[in-house]
Amino acid sequence: MRIASFERPTGGVGYGRIEGAGIVDLGARRGDDTLLEVLAEPARAEEAAGAPADYGLDEVVLLPPIPRPPRILCVGVNYLDRNAEYRDGSEAPRYPSLFMRAPASFVGHGGAIWRPPESDQLDYEGEIALVIGRGGRRIPRERAGAHIAGITCCNEGGVRDWIRHGKFNVTQGKNFDRSGAMGPWLVSADEVDPLGTLAVDTRVNDEARQHDTTDHLAFPFDFLLHYISTFTTLECGDVISTGTPRGAGIHRDPPVFLAPGDVVEVEVSGVGTLRNVVVDEPA
Amino acid sequence: MRIASFERPTGGVGYGRIEGAGIVDLGARRGDDTLLEVLAEPARAEEAAGAPADYGLDEVVLLPPIPRPPRILCVGVNYLDRNAEYRDGSEAPRYPSLFMRAPASFVGHGGAIWRPPESDQLDYEGEIALVIGRGGRRIPRERAGAHIAGITCCNEGGVRDWIRHGKFNVTQGKNFDRSGAMGPWLVSADEVDPLGTLAVDTRVNDEARQHDTTDHLAFPFDFLLHYISTFTTLECGDVISTGTPRGAGIHRDPPVFLAPGDVVEVEVSGVGTLRNVVVDEPA
Repeated sequence: MRIASFERPTGGVGYGRIEGAGIVDLGARRGDDTLLEVLAEPARAEEAAGAPADYGLDEVVLLPPIPRPPRILCVGVNYLDRNAEYRDGSEAPRYPSLFMRAPASFVGHGGAIWRPPESDQLDYEGEIALVIGRGGRRIPRERAGAHIAGITCCNEGGVRDWIRHGKFNVTQGKNFDRSGAMGPWLVSADEVDPLGTLAVDTRVNDEARQHDTTDHLAFPFDFLLHYISTFTTLECGDVISTGTPRGAGIHRDPPVFLAPGDVVEVEVSGVGTLRNVVVDEPA
Repeated sequence: MRIASFERPTGGVGYGRIEGAGIVDLGARRGDDTLLEVLAEPARAEEAAGAPADYGLDEVVLLPPIPRPPRILCVGVNYLDRNAEYRDGSEAPRYPSLFMRAPASFVGHGGAIWRPPESDQLDYEGEIALVIGRGGRRIPRERAGAHIAGITCCNEGGVRDWIRHGKFNVTQGKNFDRSGAMGPWLVSADEVDPLGTLAVDTRVNDEARQHDTTDHLAFPFDFLLHYISTFTTLECGDVISTGTPRGAGIHRDPPVFLAPGDVVEVEVSGVGTLRNVVVDEPA
């Protein structure tokens, strides 16, 4: 099952199931449920099985699959050869680096990503994002799969010079409005196993820039859920973006950043392709 | 005006105006408004002026003044002599360090702070927290004051060994459930000028541990609003905890951490005192 959030052509925000090239508006049918309730109990979305699409995908504006997650947690360095890209001589870290992003820093599939006037160092990072279905604290690794509602594609991009502003932490460079993207939809865990081998590919203007698979994760997804839930109670709707393979623009020689007109695509196996165009932020 | 959020003795979460030793339940009177609407337009809270208190402060459980802020942004190193505490030879940073915390990492005034079983390095950090009333992007410093609804006290505590887990970022150690506190209430900007000179004091078991004033800020509050709103659109209800003076437990020689039974108080001039007891997290 594929679940998307969208702006209806008639106004308002809905969520629904993708059927072919259309969307069945579950929010309109099930006014008493929210998207989070469907994530916690996916069978609720099956009830409208066979219903005809209410809108064509080309009629709606897709939003990030979870438009206002309780939290968006991002993993910093998580593919095995990534630490070497920093060329700082440090050993591979024992634990993942984690930071948070605000919902407004992401657009949905097809939305314009903004390069802000403060920087010309907008960069991409293709990632696999997990969406939590059932919350929990101190989740054992062997039960982590049962807490994942599904996965989506994430361009966890950022503004590089602002990532390095503070003594610690990357918050500011990772939170520019509309600097990243998520979507096009959530694929539920019964359709794609979030703990199986998944590939992530990033292309800029059709040129391959990043590729890796989850076989090379330093911190596999079941470990991430276990580790994160050790300090915080995970909630339904929380999003965990799981880190990017090598090959982001800043680590190329020479570094190359995104410019207006660039098309960034992030493809995750079993999910599809998230596609966005870069524009200069409107004045 | 002082505004608190609380659990009603009869159940449910309310918000209201402090009157002496009681609370006027504004949420019950103004069912069509939310706390955020009152923050955006404080005059709405004045309408019930003179109304008798609905509950005594001793009858309710106080929550953080904004129980579920859109975001809680925290400033890492912001008093002028703080950078020296790191003894890393680095120059004072040009920009503030920023990170985010989840709402569940804070309790209200009087709530028990939890020391988790994973660590014995729970620490305190007394801070002044700003609450945004009117949102905005790229707010000029000279207009920052108009965007602040009020201030409150914050114990922006954390779990020290987990702060240093990742290659970058302090997220995990700053997000243990119930590891910090906020309150007891928000004092509106018409009662205490958020941009005036404010003092913050931290005491543990009545012993003075931290003291400083906003005259010694590396990044004054008007600059913080300007800087943060450069990359993200601030929203009504966002909380910015503005950094702690020197004297946290880890920087003492030898370091000393919080233990069950310890009483932590954070006092901010014009606001009052936030008081919490440390307990071992219940099994």
